[in-house]
Amino acid sequence: MVDFTVAEFETRMTLAQAAMAQAGLDAILLCTEAELRYFSGFRTQFWQSPTRPWFLVLPRDGAPIAVIPEIGADLMFRTWVRDIRTWASPDPTDDGVSLLVDVLSKYGKVGLPMGQEASLRMPLGDFYRVHEKSNVEFVDCSELIKMIRIVKSDAEIAILRKICGIGSTAFDQASDIFHTGLSLSEAFRAFKIALLQAGADDVPYLVGAAGQGGYGDVISPPDETPLQDGDVLMLDTGASLQGYFCDFDRNFAIGSATDATKQAYGLLWQATEVGLQTARAGVTCADLFHAMHTSLGGGSSNVGRYGHGLGIQLTEYPSIASFDHTVLQPGMVMTLEPSLTISKDKMMVHEENILITDDAPILLTKRAAPELPVIG
Amino acid sequence: MVDFTVAEFETRMTLAQAAMAQAGLDAILLCTEAELRYFSGFRTQFWQSPTRPWFLVLPRDGAPIAVIPEIGADLMFRTWVRDIRTWASPDPTDDGVSLLVDVLSKYGKVGLPMGQEASLRMPLGDFYRVHEKSNVEFVDCSELIKMIRIVKSDAEIAILRKICGIGSTAFDQASDIFHTGLSLSEAFRAFKIALLQAGADDVPYLVGAAGQGGYGDVISPPDETPLQDGDVLMLDTGASLQGYFCDFDRNFAIGSATDATKQAYGLLWQATEVGLQTARAGVTCADLFHAMHTSLGGGSSNVGRYGHGLGIQLTEYPSIASFDHTVLQPGMVMTLEPSLTISKDKMMVHEENILITDDAPILLTKRAAPELPVIG
Repeated sequence: MVDFTVAEFETRMTLAQAAMAQAGLDAILLCTEAELRYFSGFRTQFWQSPTRPWFLVLPRDGAPIAVIPEIGADLMFRTWVRDIRTWASPDPTDDGVSLLVDVLSKYGKVGLPMGQEASLRMPLGDFYRVHEKSNVEFVDCSELIKMIRIVKSDAEIAILRKICGIGSTAFDQASDIFHTGLSLSEAFRAFKIALLQAGADDVPYLVGAAGQGGYGDVISPPDETPLQDGDVLMLDTGASLQGYFCDFDRNFAIGSATDATKQAYGLLWQATEVGLQTARAGVTCADLFHAMHTSLGGGSSNVGRYGHGLGIQLTEYPSIASFDHTVLQPGMVMTLEPSLTISKDKMMVHEENILITDDAPILLTKRAAPELPVIG
Repeated sequence: MVDFTVAEFETRMTLAQAAMAQAGLDAILLCTEAELRYFSGFRTQFWQSPTRPWFLVLPRDGAPIAVIPEIGADLMFRTWVRDIRTWASPDPTDDGVSLLVDVLSKYGKVGLPMGQEASLRMPLGDFYRVHEKSNVEFVDCSELIKMIRIVKSDAEIAILRKICGIGSTAFDQASDIFHTGLSLSEAFRAFKIALLQAGADDVPYLVGAAGQGGYGDVISPPDETPLQDGDVLMLDTGASLQGYFCDFDRNFAIGSATDATKQAYGLLWQATEVGLQTARAGVTCADLFHAMHTSLGGGSSNVGRYGHGLGIQLTEYPSIASFDHTVLQPGMVMTLEPSLTISKDKMMVHEENILITDDAPILLTKRAAPELPVIG
């Protein structure tokens, strides 16, 4: 299980150490899946089990230190990390606390992601104990981590390009898979199989909806309702490959579509087109948001943003939103995701995945049809 | 999207309120996927996105209060929760903090899961702000939540029985799916498809390994190594249905197996048999561990436990371990998961899922063959 070269991890570590030096941090403590994987290469679905905490310490000087349950030692030894300290977890009396305190105690100021999008994936009670016993000063380092992860390497981009291609291949089979009478639940299951058959490792995320001329929400699991003539079926997939996500959706009219529905689809497609024309290095996320928002005629939306970063998480920094003034850089991988409220309980969304360059962005997904596809 | 009756949620809430009264808590704050879903019925894969925090407050008196991003309002309205307060998230200046403070400020002592297996799925910085502004006293309520969730209702058991049956059906196809020359990566993909075709909603967890006469670890993703004659292939699946997991593994010898390998398999099967004979209401987890451990001849293991609870998470309380003195009760759903170290880098595991009763446990999985199946 080696997703990247050692050189790639050394680069990530060097960037983190330079940022630590600048921020006056002695080390960084990480305890979440994405961050541990990004800096160590430790990839496992075992995070589904909430039982055990996992820690990675990045010192400003020196090599990363993994403080992990013994059950993960074999897998961690296959990464580039060489300083691996384990304990027999779960241990209700001391679940890694002493080991972690040993590592942290020699530091003064330790970064921990505490800002937007961060979680503390360890018991809060144990965190308090670590804080007290190690006597370090914990400071937020969300921004520092974000600015490293936000730009993808060529190796990361290659995987992202593949998984977006796999998603596109699966959506190309829509007219063979979806038809009137098929329950949404069966439609989801069939599409997950199509994604796996197209080469996805996993489908950690598939949400969607179907409704007459639009849908009420965009984060639901499927129910047993059969697809009907006039429905717009939307599927939004985060399939994954080597732990990297695609995140895009497609809309299909089942049987037929009204002019109003076709028009709403066209508006969203056009807003994405504006996004594609606008997104490039030097432009801010807020600029990009406003360009797309203007294209939509200032239509309101409860989604709050028109896209986001994409990588080892389904959604990453930054947000394409009026409040986000992050400047786009070459190597950022983003979703463009305009949304449109049609009526009180009806909306439509549309999404593509792109790679930011100094020039026009590179589409990682196969561009959606300019007119709403009618199938089934 | 209605997985359970309102009566079921009312029962869960009543149990929580009785426990709060006994513990002197005014309310409980929840922010993690499993806990929000357990008490509200809010089920979505949108938790894959780390961007937005989600909160559910259970008052000791009165109905639950959801404090959630607007994007989840439609789905939350389809649950039994009626008091739903939303904001346009993400909001970098105030991501639900003020709304949550409004709800919490009237309480004195608020429970929050901070113990083993708990996470804080919100930015720690925002938690500190909520703590300071609401001026409530947060106390750990992990044990309280655990003791409610640990006993499954008939409706939960029915789903768990189904998903364990689906997993068993997929494993029955092993001899059609796995053969020498097939890469582990393709074996995993084919098995995920088999699980979906058998009726699973999702396969959030599939780990495993293959090696000559055993394997080095049990939490890895697959690589491109082809299956070889003499390999033991182990697949451990957490497939899910309506958000409930099965969690069990099966071992298969590819082509042939040595006597030592067959013997190790037999030892594990026998230890599970002892587990099945021992597990019943009134017995402690530690008793159950020791019975299985004795059956294995006191063989060591780096897994640290021989099973755990099962439900809306792949692993739940309690642990079948020497340190866990939880008394088994009817309605608990557990895994029996003995493991055996064969040599320094080789181990084998075996796992079944059971329902605890006053008498012999009910197998939810189709019992593994007493002798190592040779396939491919």
